[in-house]
Amino acid sequence: MIVIGELINTSRDDVEPAVKERDAEFIQNLAKEQEEAGADYIDVNCGTLIREEPEALEWLVSTVQEAVDAPLCIDSPDPNAIKKGLKAYEHEKPAIINSITAEEERYEEILPLLKEHNAAVVALAMDDSGMPSDADDRIRVASKLIDDLIADGIALEDIYVDPIIQPIGTDDGMGVHILNAIDEITNKYEEVHITCGLSNISHGLPNRQLLNQAYLVLAMSRGLDSAIMDPLDDKIMSLATASETLLGNDTYCANYIKAAKSNKLTI
Amino acid sequence: MIVIGELINTSRDDVEPAVKERDAEFIQNLAKEQEEAGADYIDVNCGTLIREEPEALEWLVSTVQEAVDAPLCIDSPDPNAIKKGLKAYEHEKPAIINSITAEEERYEEILPLLKEHNAAVVALAMDDSGMPSDADDRIRVASKLIDDLIADGIALEDIYVDPIIQPIGTDDGMGVHILNAIDEITNKYEEVHITCGLSNISHGLPNRQLLNQAYLVLAMSRGLDSAIMDPLDDKIMSLATASETLLGNDTYCANYIKAAKSNKLTI
Repeated sequence: MIVIGELINTSRDDVEPAVKERDAEFIQNLAKEQEEAGADYIDVNCGTLIREEPEALEWLVSTVQEAVDAPLCIDSPDPNAIKKGLKAYEHEKPAIINSITAEEERYEEILPLLKEHNAAVVALAMDDSGMPSDADDRIRVASKLIDDLIADGIALEDIYVDPIIQPIGTDDGMGVHILNAIDEITNKYEEVHITCGLSNISHGLPNRQLLNQAYLVLAMSRGLDSAIMDPLDDKIMSLATASETLLGNDTYCANYIKAAKSNKLTI
Repeated sequence: MIVIGELINTSRDDVEPAVKERDAEFIQNLAKEQEEAGADYIDVNCGTLIREEPEALEWLVSTVQEAVDAPLCIDSPDPNAIKKGLKAYEHEKPAIINSITAEEERYEEILPLLKEHNAAVVALAMDDSGMPSDADDRIRVASKLIDDLIADGIALEDIYVDPIIQPIGTDDGMGVHILNAIDEITNKYEEVHITCGLSNISHGLPNRQLLNQAYLVLAMSRGLDSAIMDPLDDKIMSLATASETLLGNDTYCANYIKAAKSNKLTI
């Protein structure tokens, strides 16, 4: 499971003022906490700042990479902001750019950045016709995007397809659409990664963490191997560890036993 | 999710003496607790008592059905014990007989009981060649058993296929074998139920509940719709409720919202 820690995002109440005031200590602590909890990448997103976003993202990248060893996921809808963020990025392990889509303009703007920085990329299953509605939409758009990226020289293992999770509360068939899309995409492209903005599934419903926990495991059963999620939720991290073991990705259950012995598992 | 409460089983330290001493209060409380926690069936098993088993099972059936409204799952390897148990069974909803197998003798002994009592049945994926090893074994034996039961007049919706869970701790590929078997069997026979002795997966490993929780959700994602499990584990029951919603079995998420409002969900 490749965990991308989601917490450094200015859509969160406490993060926006910290970024505006360039409060390095607050941001670095949030990065360290996520790394210690097991995040493999730290996502940085300050999309709510709009005009100030490019400079703020550059500062975030510098500030976070000073504090942690984990590589970053540079997250913005604005290619200029991503460009600025990548300029500051010095980690030896390439960043993940979050995100490219099958929209013609966005594709053309992000592709050169991928190549220049040897970066991995989150590939959102949407195109110029808008957001996908069902499984077939997601499979069709993701397939086109993967095929185009491969044709343009990007390796399959550097692509993190995001099937775009929308809330189960507004469409009770959403969970199944996405699971079926994950099934089909991983059958078609074995080496590709599948990630998602996990907590979108529970938007608007009570006890959101419980839905996030269950959906992570449901999706892992169908081929999801990454998520943009909250690594400070001990229970979801424990369920992810157990699920990796149960899905045959843990020889002799050694990782599970080690985690149990270090008291890292929450029942 | 059809939850079969597993706790009335003389393999458990506190249950064996209670059954031997015919301690009706202890047994009835254990039945009520499970029903209140959401068990749809109460399993009764006193297989460790061997020679005394048939009489003890008859007593268990009478004693438990006095205390709860839930129907029972009458659980024994011994057809004579099952016969005795069924004699005492008076619930208007038919019992589940646990279990039939594709072993020739067992099949011939259990089939008439199914017909006589209009019972449902747990169909274990094993035959005279022994326990199944991989997914293919499970699919082959379960298919034969289902086909035979249908040919003998049993309805598909009265069959609960049990793919036979063995511990992940002794074979780290076990989790995947079983998930793949569930996939294939539910694709082939849409109306059939899939159940399992869930906690077998975690036998011998630490933090067993966590593995049981994760495996229930992984298996639900592939078509499992029942389990013989511990309904007193609030967390596993909450994950099951959330998973049903996420799998599209909860119109407008109404059941989930109701459970949250009644404080029945554990994060």
